[in-house]
Amino acid sequence: MTGVPSIDPRSGETVEIVADETTTGQVDEICTSALAAAGPLEDLGRDGRAALLDDLAAALEPHRDRIVEVADRETALGPVRLNGELTRTCYQLRLFGEVLRDGGYLEATVDHAGDTPMGPRPDLRRMLVPIGPVAVFGASNFPLAFSVPGGDTASAIAAGSPVVLKAHHSHPATSQLCYQILAAAARKSGAPDGTFGIVHGLRAGADLVAHPAIRAVGFTGSVTTARALLAVIEKRPEPIPFYGELSSLNPVVVTPAAAAGRAETIGAEFAASFTLVAGQFCTKPGLIFVPTGPDGDRLVTAVEEAVARLGPMVMLNAGIATAYERGTLALQAAVADGASPHTDIPQAGVPHTGVPHAGVPQAGVPHHGVSHTGVSHDGVPSLLPPSDGDAALKEPAGPTVDAPSGGTGRPRLFAVSAGALPPEATEECFGPVAVVARWSDEAQLFAAIAGLPPSLTATVHRDAGETVLPAELARRFRPTAGRLIFDGYPTGVAVAWAQHHGGPWPATNTQHTSVGTSAIRRFLRPVTWQNASAELLPAELREEFDSIPRRIDGVLRTRL
Amino acid sequence: MTGVPSIDPRSGETVEIVADETTTGQVDEICTSALAAAGPLEDLGRDGRAALLDDLAAALEPHRDRIVEVADRETALGPVRLNGELTRTCYQLRLFGEVLRDGGYLEATVDHAGDTPMGPRPDLRRMLVPIGPVAVFGASNFPLAFSVPGGDTASAIAAGSPVVLKAHHSHPATSQLCYQILAAAARKSGAPDGTFGIVHGLRAGADLVAHPAIRAVGFTGSVTTARALLAVIEKRPEPIPFYGELSSLNPVVVTPAAAAGRAETIGAEFAASFTLVAGQFCTKPGLIFVPTGPDGDRLVTAVEEAVARLGPMVMLNAGIATAYERGTLALQAAVADGASPHTDIPQAGVPHTGVPHAGVPQAGVPHHGVSHTGVSHDGVPSLLPPSDGDAALKEPAGPTVDAPSGGTGRPRLFAVSAGALPPEATEECFGPVAVVARWSDEAQLFAAIAGLPPSLTATVHRDAGETVLPAELARRFRPTAGRLIFDGYPTGVAVAWAQHHGGPWPATNTQHTSVGTSAIRRFLRPVTWQNASAELLPAELREEFDSIPRRIDGVLRTRL
Repeated sequence: MTGVPSIDPRSGETVEIVADETTTGQVDEICTSALAAAGPLEDLGRDGRAALLDDLAAALEPHRDRIVEVADRETALGPVRLNGELTRTCYQLRLFGEVLRDGGYLEATVDHAGDTPMGPRPDLRRMLVPIGPVAVFGASNFPLAFSVPGGDTASAIAAGSPVVLKAHHSHPATSQLCYQILAAAARKSGAPDGTFGIVHGLRAGADLVAHPAIRAVGFTGSVTTARALLAVIEKRPEPIPFYGELSSLNPVVVTPAAAAGRAETIGAEFAASFTLVAGQFCTKPGLIFVPTGPDGDRLVTAVEEAVARLGPMVMLNAGIATAYERGTLALQAAVADGASPHTDIPQAGVPHTGVPHAGVPQAGVPHHGVSHTGVSHDGVPSLLPPSDGDAALKEPAGPTVDAPSGGTGRPRLFAVSAGALPPEATEECFGPVAVVARWSDEAQLFAAIAGLPPSLTATVHRDAGETVLPAELARRFRPTAGRLIFDGYPTGVAVAWAQHHGGPWPATNTQHTSVGTSAIRRFLRPVTWQNASAELLPAELREEFDSIPRRIDGVLRTRL
Repeated sequence: MTGVPSIDPRSGETVEIVADETTTGQVDEICTSALAAAGPLEDLGRDGRAALLDDLAAALEPHRDRIVEVADRETALGPVRLNGELTRTCYQLRLFGEVLRDGGYLEATVDHAGDTPMGPRPDLRRMLVPIGPVAVFGASNFPLAFSVPGGDTASAIAAGSPVVLKAHHSHPATSQLCYQILAAAARKSGAPDGTFGIVHGLRAGADLVAHPAIRAVGFTGSVTTARALLAVIEKRPEPIPFYGELSSLNPVVVTPAAAAGRAETIGAEFAASFTLVAGQFCTKPGLIFVPTGPDGDRLVTAVEEAVARLGPMVMLNAGIATAYERGTLALQAAVADGASPHTDIPQAGVPHTGVPHAGVPQAGVPHHGVSHTGVSHDGVPSLLPPSDGDAALKEPAGPTVDAPSGGTGRPRLFAVSAGALPPEATEECFGPVAVVARWSDEAQLFAAIAGLPPSLTATVHRDAGETVLPAELARRFRPTAGRLIFDGYPTGVAVAWAQHHGGPWPATNTQHTSVGTSAIRRFLRPVTWQNASAELLPAELREEFDSIPRRIDGVLRTRL
């Protein structure tokens, strides 16, 4: 048995051994139990599961202090952020209760029997049903809102799908604590045993996605780990959907009018956004296009000054700190080697962090199309070829990688010309670093945008009332972004009905969102009943049922 | 250049060379043109595309006689069926026009800025946008409704996505003719060049799904070809969704009460359903559970008698005929070898078809988990290991496989005990064959059902008012079926709002449908606009817009 350590990233010390790594046999038992729970969990009905979600949220609140304490010890995210994250988590659980009570998510549709231009049509009634047990992989950077009690869990339970959690190695104690609270609350609320399960360890994660009882996977993490898990899924007799929220650059464009109007404000706010929580957000803006000229210079100076005021930041785990160091070294080398006309690479007065610079940039880091910087979202360095899934999964977890115990990251800013963007500047580097790309004309800007990978978000800063260039930028970004932001920052993803947290690869590998109410769609599948009598139909499809929105003979009707 | 032959399956003769196989360079040109058309096609708007779909339907009608003539010559499906299929095709195109005018498919959602328990929320507005150019692979068995002018095409064009068609080698002349009609009508209707493209040849199909401009694939065909195309997609730098409608057994259960009440009717109707169009439907019922005892005996006799009246049937192409012969031989051997207590395997008075029985069953057919019978949906024998994608794609198309020129299939019925179902009886065998599984008690029936693969459909025949056993059967089938049918037959898939034509693997590899209005969801992806002023928003998300259903601050509102 290998113990799963809980490590304090501030000291690099192991505080406790949380659990043994889950064995293959144990994974099988847990998944089998989840499968047995699927029917009874669905049978709770929409109202029953809405009450369950309320009960889960209510059960977390009394443990707030303990949860925040353990999560802070494991992640160094700090009590303010973690209290906010727990509030978000409870709100999210309750919002999915509202989704259930509303019922529109079922897409209930009734076509009565009748004649059509193609002949007689039978009575057809369609709605969405639970997909079955879901594996949820926690994220390093959101120990609550994207982990055990997070959005994947809330949306899967709402859908009626039991959840088997893969605890992230970066916060196993937080994961275990939250799991115990949720499982106890579920039992008390009348949910079946097996509604929640948890596994620890990389091999257990691979066993989990390979298990025949698992019908879908929710994942937030690196492209490399995602590819490793996808390789496991490809070996299943039957494929299952894998919803991966992966890697995102999140470009920002400042128009000349915006720079003229509020250079200092944008500069300070941008610095705050990309260094928030040491830049460990999937929505961190990693690249900002600033016009050349005095207004843009003022903006860049404001960013530099804000960055210079910041000290080294404790990162989530040693693997992420190491990857960040490698990524920023690669960026530095790329910017220095490049044809950039700018020499104002801020070496600023930022104090050295104690993480060794280790000589020259590691030119030997393989460029395999996934990451030029080698920076990984979840602390597993992406040095392995992406196709070698099993090897990636056999690699020890972050803390035991060749890396300093604990680790900090120094906020960094690099500057290049938009006309000579090195590849390293167009990929996510997880941590408090951003690249300023100075642009001198729209053709150059548009060409640079055309070369960017898809992202979760794209942001435009414009002057009040300015529409021509912003509209053109929105048009160009829309095919490759999931959310278009105006005069704001991508960090901070509201949990809402209209939210979309997704985007084309490598942002995600799905057309669905992992934040907001429509995240439930991932864990549902349609079924049509043909010529079924009322007794054989789900309540929501019976003739007289009218308390949810339904489309009847082609016309959408609400309950109002 | 290799010519693409149009072959008459009745004679096995090549009637004409339709085109040259499309070269890699030509595929690139066609896909590039499709990408260029994406913006202008979207800019036509919902009303513009609805008019376009009406125009496409209207353009096909005047060519009805010619289309049916060419399609019949290539498929032998007969003018009655093909006229019906063209009617369905035109209806389908127009129905997607209704979907556009309704606008609910956009899932338009508005959350106004405001305070929430997690703090202030920005203004968020979400709707679905086109995914980009789509590759549509035609099916052998529906030269119109699931091919060039079919449901994938209609739903993709409705979504605003240009379509590049892969003509099926079984009906290239029909494909080319329909493409020319659609492309000319689109041009006349004001759609951009590149709205439609077409490619011929297996290699062109692989080039197509590998092309960076292609953003999604609609496919109807065999698991083997699907796996080969998925292997190509896995080699892309970025994965794209592949919507495969693949392989389906479509089990039917007859309750004792139903057998008692209408044994002869069900027997005759079942025989008609599984032999319709030589059993070449993805919804062909391949397995029927009939109770033991006199009522069940009467039912089976009725099936046998109906089958005995049928002569050999011309199949879609020589590859399918060969695979069918191999599949039925494998079934026959499995039934003969098995522990089946039944000796009433109908060797009936069915006349021999002239297709050689070729000695003993081919015991050497590899059992690789995809097909025990080696029968493929699209005429490419599934003899290749599924992981060997490139090899499968290098294999010559159906007509040049070692097989008789042209080919017929003799309707067959096999009988086994539900307690000893051989694997060959639980997999799709494309063609006019079915297996009768006699069941003696519910435990035996439920155990047999638990061993079946997922299917597009599951059917229950019950007595009027009987609910206990039908409800239990529905409960057991629901996790593995896309459509639950009562007192009917799975063949005949109505194009409707409430239709679902899908199901878990191997029925499909997606949670979406390929028939019915919600098929459009496959070719759309969500985008959220954050803090966008009215000028920067699509019309449907502007404040004053009210002519489509929208969810506003969590409440669904219709235009009524």
